[in-house]
Amino acid sequence: MEKKDLLKDVVKHVDMTSFDATPIINAMRSMSFSSRDTANAADIFMMMMKEKECLNVLVLAGSTSAGGCMKIYSDMIKYKMVDVIVSTGASIVDMDFFEGMGFKHFIGRQDIDDNDLREMYIDRIYDTFISEEDLQKCDTAIKEIADGMKHGCYSSREFIREMGKYLQKNGKKPESLVQLAYEYDVPIFCPAFSDSSAGFGLVKHQWENPKSHVSIDSVKDFRELTMIKMFCKESGLFMVGGGVPKNFVQDTVVCAEVLGVDVPMHKYAVQITVADVRDGACSSSTLKEASSWGKVNTTHEQMVYAEATTIVPLIASYIYHGKAWEKREYKRLTQIFEKYTQEQIIEKAKAQQ
Amino acid sequence: MEKKDLLKDVVKHVDMTSFDATPIINAMRSMSFSSRDTANAADIFMMMMKEKECLNVLVLAGSTSAGGCMKIYSDMIKYKMVDVIVSTGASIVDMDFFEGMGFKHFIGRQDIDDNDLREMYIDRIYDTFISEEDLQKCDTAIKEIADGMKHGCYSSREFIREMGKYLQKNGKKPESLVQLAYEYDVPIFCPAFSDSSAGFGLVKHQWENPKSHVSIDSVKDFRELTMIKMFCKESGLFMVGGGVPKNFVQDTVVCAEVLGVDVPMHKYAVQITVADVRDGACSSSTLKEASSWGKVNTTHEQMVYAEATTIVPLIASYIYHGKAWEKREYKRLTQIFEKYTQEQIIEKAKAQQ
Amino acid sequence: MEKKDLLKDVVKHVDMTSFDATPIINAMRSMSFSSRDTANAADIFMMMMKEKECLNVLVLAGSTSAGGCMKIYSDMIKYKMVDVIVSTGASIVDMDFFEGMGFKHFIGRQDIDDNDLREMYIDRIYDTFISEEDLQKCDTAIKEIADGMKHGCYSSREFIREMGKYLQKNGKKPESLVQLAYEYDVPIFCPAFSDSSAGFGLVKHQWENPKSHVSIDSVKDFRELTMIKMFCKESGLFMVGGGVPKNFVQDTVVCAEVLGVDVPMHKYAVQITVADVRDGACSSSTLKEASSWGKVNTTHEQMVYAEATTIVPLIASYIYHGKAWEKREYKRLTQIFEKYTQEQIIEKAKAQQ
Amino acid sequence: MEKKDLLKDVVKHVDMTSFDATPIINAMRSMSFSSRDTANAADIFMMMMKEKECLNVLVLAGSTSAGGCMKIYSDMIKYKMVDVIVSTGASIVDMDFFEGMGFKHFIGRQDIDDNDLREMYIDRIYDTFISEEDLQKCDTAIKEIADGMKHGCYSSREFIREMGKYLQKNGKKPESLVQLAYEYDVPIFCPAFSDSSAGFGLVKHQWENPKSHVSIDSVKDFRELTMIKMFCKESGLFMVGGGVPKNFVQDTVVCAEVLGVDVPMHKYAVQITVADVRDGACSSSTLKEASSWGKVNTTHEQMVYAEATTIVPLIASYIYHGKAWEKREYKRLTQIFEKYTQEQIIEKAKAQQ
Repeated sequence: MEKKDLLKDVVKHVDMTSFDATPIINAMRSMSFSSRDTANAADIFMMMMKEKECLNVLVLAGSTSAGGCMKIYSDMIKYKMVDVIVSTGASIVDMDFFEGMGFKHFIGRQDIDDNDLREMYIDRIYDTFISEEDLQKCDTAIKEIADGMKHGCYSSREFIREMGKYLQKNGKKPESLVQLAYEYDVPIFCPAFSDSSAGFGLVKHQWENPKSHVSIDSVKDFRELTMIKMFCKESGLFMVGGGVPKNFVQDTVVCAEVLGVDVPMHKYAVQITVADVRDGACSSSTLKEASSWGKVNTTHEQMVYAEATTIVPLIASYIYHGKAWEKREYKRLTQIFEKYTQEQIIEKAKAQQ
Repeated sequence: MEKKDLLKDVVKHVDMTSFDATPIINAMRSMSFSSRDTANAADIFMMMMKEKECLNVLVLAGSTSAGGCMKIYSDMIKYKMVDVIVSTGASIVDMDFFEGMGFKHFIGRQDIDDNDLREMYIDRIYDTFISEEDLQKCDTAIKEIADGMKHGCYSSREFIREMGKYLQKNGKKPESLVQLAYEYDVPIFCPAFSDSSAGFGLVKHQWENPKSHVSIDSVKDFRELTMIKMFCKESGLFMVGGGVPKNFVQDTVVCAEVLGVDVPMHKYAVQITVADVRDGACSSSTLKEASSWGKVNTTHEQMVYAEATTIVPLIASYIYHGKAWEKREYKRLTQIFEKYTQEQIIEKAKAQQ
Repeated sequence: MEKKDLLKDVVKHVDMTSFDATPIINAMRSMSFSSRDTANAADIFMMMMKEKECLNVLVLAGSTSAGGCMKIYSDMIKYKMVDVIVSTGASIVDMDFFEGMGFKHFIGRQDIDDNDLREMYIDRIYDTFISEEDLQKCDTAIKEIADGMKHGCYSSREFIREMGKYLQKNGKKPESLVQLAYEYDVPIFCPAFSDSSAGFGLVKHQWENPKSHVSIDSVKDFRELTMIKMFCKESGLFMVGGGVPKNFVQDTVVCAEVLGVDVPMHKYAVQITVADVRDGACSSSTLKEASSWGKVNTTHEQMVYAEATTIVPLIASYIYHGKAWEKREYKRLTQIFEKYTQEQIIEKAKAQQ
Repeated sequence: MEKKDLLKDVVKHVDMTSFDATPIINAMRSMSFSSRDTANAADIFMMMMKEKECLNVLVLAGSTSAGGCMKIYSDMIKYKMVDVIVSTGASIVDMDFFEGMGFKHFIGRQDIDDNDLREMYIDRIYDTFISEEDLQKCDTAIKEIADGMKHGCYSSREFIREMGKYLQKNGKKPESLVQLAYEYDVPIFCPAFSDSSAGFGLVKHQWENPKSHVSIDSVKDFRELTMIKMFCKESGLFMVGGGVPKNFVQDTVVCAEVLGVDVPMHKYAVQITVADVRDGACSSSTLKEASSWGKVNTTHEQMVYAEATTIVPLIASYIYHGKAWEKREYKRLTQIFEKYTQEQIIEKAKAQQ
């Protein structure tokens, strides 16, 4: 079997605007188990839409962007459903930026000899394939971006913004998440940014510039995300998967407190995951548990136990067709870092207390 | 809190004809992970529809009937999608017959003190409630049915047929699965029949009639189901959950062989489950594993890893709107036990070899 | 690859007497997550040992007998740890009786083409193999046993007792569970008995004797198990896996009530399983949920989330070395069906109320 | 209920030297399912011990340090079993450094109202409690450490080294992982370092020093870890949980390649996790899948499906009592960053190719 035979059928990203899941979600509301949980999650996300001032955070972990949900997430920016994104590096760099560069994910299989794939330079994500050679072009682009930047310490948000600018110029796909986020001033944070294809390009950049170079400071990420939370006050989380991004965004409530500002816990929280609650890890920890830490309010929280590609399209389509987003405005939160000093933000937050 | 406050909101069973999931399933076909698996499962079920002669078996374990999928299963009979049913006792007696008698499942919660529920005679199924008193009326009806039957050994299928007749006369809900199966001559098998509310009524019947009484012979179940497999030759399985019903129906291939008839393995097999493959149990064993036992053909098989109430409505709606079922006919397999001797069936099967 | 190369390394059943897990269990008591749950489960099982009059029920589902725990279960009979067994048919017939006949389970692999296995007549249980030809000899032995019995309706317990007698005469392995249970008068119930290799032999027996034959009446099983519960009053459950056996034994409390006898709920309950609680099925339903049904007392109950072969040997070794079993006596409960009428048992039970 | 009643029973960390799990592991080798996987994982870890030159990496995600395995991990340093650690921030800061400061984890419960806990400043990790006030003292210590450092960009490894130095002076518990790692020159990397209690202290430090401050550069982490991989050539991974640390260390193979050095894939890999493989995420992705990416060799890899607190103590005790570690030497890899330039390391690596 040859590489071109295995990289033939492209993963097509589901379009939430192309079908209306409203009757399904409505039916699920009067059912049981995960279907009722799904409807409840959709209802909570809808409340977030209707509360115009609420900071809506999209939290991404796992590979659903590769697996056909990529357009949902970029459409969420376009339709003002989310105001900030916290993600693993892979979702942003290896998947979204990757497709923004014109590369594709392919329909693969899980029952294949991985040694054979390696020899063909095919990388496998469960039942999905990409070309390792395409991915290396991503690494190179990242290095190129870093090489062009003023040396110093950046948050991942600042670097990803440069990636958006790069795609606007060099991209091959009009509406990648990274590019749209750049254009709509939506901040994207990857608290473990170098744990992705970006890591390779950045290490190479530093290797070649050992004395002075671009660094990614994850403390700055945390600081900026906490400033956003302070700035907006109320917030809601729509979480696909868990891991570092889930914990990171939840912690902003505590971080604000550490900085002397009393912000409310996250008012809304939805998580879709198959992680098992019984191992004590963060990915699987319940949203009620997060409440003991003072992070999430228990009134409007829902975990949905499902592999997310089956559920996210339904909820997203329901929200889209519900049209509550039409009354929302672009928050353009990236601009607060240009417009306000940290002191001004803290003052505003204290005034809102 | 009082009982009537907890038993207020009724579980409404989703109607697969009321919305069209075709665009969603079509989109899932080009995605990854469980969504692609869902589309593939739908495609296999569609092949079963198009192969008019194929014996379509609905296999039920778990509580999806209680959880809002009950109407889907009875509609599958009505629309000629399934020709025989193999199920746990609970799905047939505690859930379907129960609602056939006019009782209801209620929207409950999982985070409630079960000792309080017990004192109020409320039974909990994860997040769903029923009244224990209603369930006891089921037990009584079962005993009444048994009391009215000629003493002797019956298969569960024969007994469930009497339950259908009983509902036709005394039922309060027009289209229960048990009643429709009776009317359309669809055999229902519960290989562990007394492991359900039926067990209580039947034990009481036997207790009062210790010398001579109605017995449920699970060997007869196995014999009859194997005869059906022999009679129809090709077969496909649509399995919701696993457990005893899954293994039972798969074993008919081997059983036919033991009786000297070479029948083909199940040609199509779909299973929707959250059971974890790694514990070596049957519920979770892959359909490929079943192939090593000579039970299931590996060409058209798909396991979908999902809590079934989120997936079954999508697949069912897709199949309904696909209309391939319109060309199928009611197989009325119950009648073969009246029309043919066991020798005639075996002869027919040998002729088909 | 040839069959003999794949069936070479035998699964050896772990001997709980050969190592002492006491220090590990003691350490786990002060840890967290599943390790603490394991220690708590061991403590509950120990309470069951110390309460000499308590009816200790071993509940088996899944394939741990095949997977190396077979000797633990037969030793539990020998060392008076359990007084009655409720099991899937597979654990009793395909696994234990199978090895009692002199056959073996073999160390296999899960990553192998199941079509190849089928051609070699090798059956796969996840990573474990058996020879299909050996299993067929089991079917034949079952048929032989049935052929030699007086025609009529039997409980699975009565039939399994005949299997024990058969092994005493024809067996090749001294201490199979089935044989020991026969010798120590420990009743074994398989509520879905024909869903196992026994089904094949019994169907063939009935096929050859269509007018009059041996039948397995699962209602009788339920009646007998309820009589045992009534006879002993207090009870504790040690459950490996879930499924039909779990529900069946739990239901005896309700069944006794239906027969007019007020018996206490199961006082102790331990379950080791990987089933996920979120699908609403019985295998995964919590023991607290069972309490809402009036089946299990919530004071001493523990679910352990683990693949059982990793945990059962630790708990069993802890119990064995704890020696509380030394003060227990063989309850020889099989004999109550010979010594007492159903009326006498009910009278005794009412007197104990 | 008062706080002091809930924080009474301390989690005691299991001591792998205090019991010998060798007979259990030996028995598991001839069993099936997860027990055989456990034995195989132990065997692979033993190979890592015997290969003296092999870089042994301990990878930590999840909360097993909090849950009673903390001493195992620090003993692994002491007994030369591991040469480098890659971890989530929580395991290092919130758990290990926290106890190093003299604070404790407590035996809690999962079925408690989290709102009540929050009011008492008790944080819950599934069934385990800590005092929020103690944790805040950790944040303060971190800030103090940062305040005392020369401003600039550090890897998490460099910062954690300062934490070790701090504990040597101010710690209350002799053998914390962080302190032992400092004393034995074992590098610890947290690729998402600010996603932990450390984040709070560091944000506060930066907030107070907005112009010039300590930053944590995750690119530097990746660069340093890749240098270690290059320096040692062969490597093996012992992974508890998955998430960012798992992916991060696996990527070093690819990163070396990007820097022009051909290093071998990780030769040994063990992962203990309950993550479900079917969601396409990294935590759950099989080690075979990692092989398609050119990261892990498939010859000696084993995933064990278990909640790690039940399995890690068995494997660790087996390794300890096997004594192969006695022949190993402390690699003191921290020193390579002082002794060698990056050019020298790359030269050495190329010479080893």
